[in-house]
Amino acid sequence: MALILTFLGKGGTGRTTVAIAAAKQLASKGARVLLAGQDPGPTLGLLLGASPSPDPQELEQNLQVVQFQSAVLLERSWEEVKKLEAQYLRTPLLKNVYGQELGVLPGMDSALALNAIREYEASGKYDVIIYDGSGDQTTLRMLGMPEILSWYIRRFRKVVEDSDLWRTVSPFIQPISSAVLNVSWSGDNFAQQPTNEVNNLLERGRAAVADPNRVAAYLVTTSAPTAVSTAQYFWGSAQQVGLTVGGVLLNQESVTEAISENFTPLAVSSLPSSPPGDWQPLIDALPDLRQVSGLPKPIEIDIPGRQVRLFLPGFDKKQVKLTQYGPEVTIEAGDQRRNISLPPQLSGQPVKGAKFQNSYLAISF
Amino acid sequence: MALILTFLGKGGTGRTTVAIAAAKQLASKGARVLLAGQDPGPTLGLLLGASPSPDPQELEQNLQVVQFQSAVLLERSWEEVKKLEAQYLRTPLLKNVYGQELGVLPGMDSALALNAIREYEASGKYDVIIYDGSGDQTTLRMLGMPEILSWYIRRFRKVVEDSDLWRTVSPFIQPISSAVLNVSWSGDNFAQQPTNEVNNLLERGRAAVADPNRVAAYLVTTSAPTAVSTAQYFWGSAQQVGLTVGGVLLNQESVTEAISENFTPLAVSSLPSSPPGDWQPLIDALPDLRQVSGLPKPIEIDIPGRQVRLFLPGFDKKQVKLTQYGPEVTIEAGDQRRNISLPPQLSGQPVKGAKFQNSYLAISF
Repeated sequence: MALILTFLGKGGTGRTTVAIAAAKQLASKGARVLLAGQDPGPTLGLLLGASPSPDPQELEQNLQVVQFQSAVLLERSWEEVKKLEAQYLRTPLLKNVYGQELGVLPGMDSALALNAIREYEASGKYDVIIYDGSGDQTTLRMLGMPEILSWYIRRFRKVVEDSDLWRTVSPFIQPISSAVLNVSWSGDNFAQQPTNEVNNLLERGRAAVADPNRVAAYLVTTSAPTAVSTAQYFWGSAQQVGLTVGGVLLNQESVTEAISENFTPLAVSSLPSSPPGDWQPLIDALPDLRQVSGLPKPIEIDIPGRQVRLFLPGFDKKQVKLTQYGPEVTIEAGDQRRNISLPPQLSGQPVKGAKFQNSYLAISF
Repeated sequence: MALILTFLGKGGTGRTTVAIAAAKQLASKGARVLLAGQDPGPTLGLLLGASPSPDPQELEQNLQVVQFQSAVLLERSWEEVKKLEAQYLRTPLLKNVYGQELGVLPGMDSALALNAIREYEASGKYDVIIYDGSGDQTTLRMLGMPEILSWYIRRFRKVVEDSDLWRTVSPFIQPISSAVLNVSWSGDNFAQQPTNEVNNLLERGRAAVADPNRVAAYLVTTSAPTAVSTAQYFWGSAQQVGLTVGGVLLNQESVTEAISENFTPLAVSSLPSSPPGDWQPLIDALPDLRQVSGLPKPIEIDIPGRQVRLFLPGFDKKQVKLTQYGPEVTIEAGDQRRNISLPPQLSGQPVKGAKFQNSYLAISF
């Protein structure tokens, strides 16, 4: 089981530099580290003095580096899709489409990277995977994907099953599936088997993101007001995807009380400025990023108190919207929506009140 | 018809600052300008000293500002989808799903923003739309979406039509569509009518991105080597989506010959550093960004010479991959794949050779 670490913050605050230093520090302590770069531009390679490729390469002892390339990952995933198709379809049709011709659409980068991280994690080859992503909303969308996608599947499945459409279409499912597929599933199995497999995968992903021993983020900032505000914003936004933020890394500046106050209760560590290629001062200044504990949980459900408490630092009440249109309670903040499945004791109950206190939104039922 | 301008470059080089100054400059010259921010963080608001909202607000004469919020845009789009469904389906099923509960998945930000830009463009209210996006691969994926999505539709439609699956399924299309839809389309129309509408929309989008009088980008960089290399990389990558880059804005530095050489034949303009809130020095230093002309076209097809020439600055031959697996020629560069539809005279011909010269890849047939 590998710990996945990533860095959030405004562009230009040194996230990639910090990611490299963190990878080198953990490798020097004996952890088997994979440094995975998302941005296809030249920055990671220039800072490393190497040319990272789409397959992991050894950089130094215990430290490998990989550069995700969506075009390459898509080509490889396509081969997997074709294998699955050949397994289930009597006359596969995708065999005539080549992975080498598939273009990359918005969102594919995130889906492919998340899948690649999952596979590297499952390989058992690494103790720590450091993901140098875009470090902004895009990274949060990627980590929020398992939860949101499983919500879509669950919600729309119910809508379809409750609909007239399903009653109209279902008599045709059996003859079509028998004609098209190798196996003769009943209508129900046809819909359920692949869906359940996907659901299990998404549920495991959601659970991993919510566990600070599996996935954690650190904020990187300078003392510039826009950088500090952006870091605070991502801190709050991270909670919306259930991601724990372990601390703040203040790049090339000394820690002041004013800066620390913005991030209570997180520890703020000061990182020195050092000439390109001289990693030791940075490595020495970094805390051990594997120690993420004692921090507020993104969500706490108190059944006897009939209360759900959400940790949403960096937001005020005006920036948070609470709705109860569908079967669940929806929290909107940081341009993200989170649907909270309530435990049976609170499910279906109307919200009695919500107040914002000490960075917590407390919802009473 | 509005001109859409955007800025590409490494994070922290001042893209948002430049976008604001450009908006103010063009508005002061009498153009009706919309400044559209993508990043949901606080930067744009802090720099503007305002709180941009999801609906355009007047900032000063001729200048409006809007902050895209994907959660809000998704909610509004969903209402449109439900209207369409009610129009075509006998028993609409999506009416029970509320826009207020829909979460944002990777890629939706780009698709929703592109749609919002298209609607603001079509409104006739603006002469210039300045899009302050993430300024990196994500912006390029967004602008490449019309071309790539229309390729997917075209390619997979052909695959399906040629397949046994279609022959198996098509007898069921008629009874299902009659039972489910209000109108009794024939199987062919059922597949064709909505597809053609989407194709027209995508084709108009593709044509707009390829026309420098409709959409253009500028590179923003400092003199830092990683910033310059990143700007070069995006310059080449922009060609892969057919986007014209109009020039280079060198932030807070004087132009040197060494920097200019990296971007020949683009003009490099130096922008001064100025205290927060003092926009005039920046406004005065910016060139007129509406004048994009005389620049290399991303693609030139020379039928008599049996040659296709692609302008790919910032790449060398090793970074560009040419394949001919499918019916078209595929160019892979900058983690993007572009499928080139050849004119009838060259279509289906094998590639005889390819050479890289003066930033051009010349492919001979």
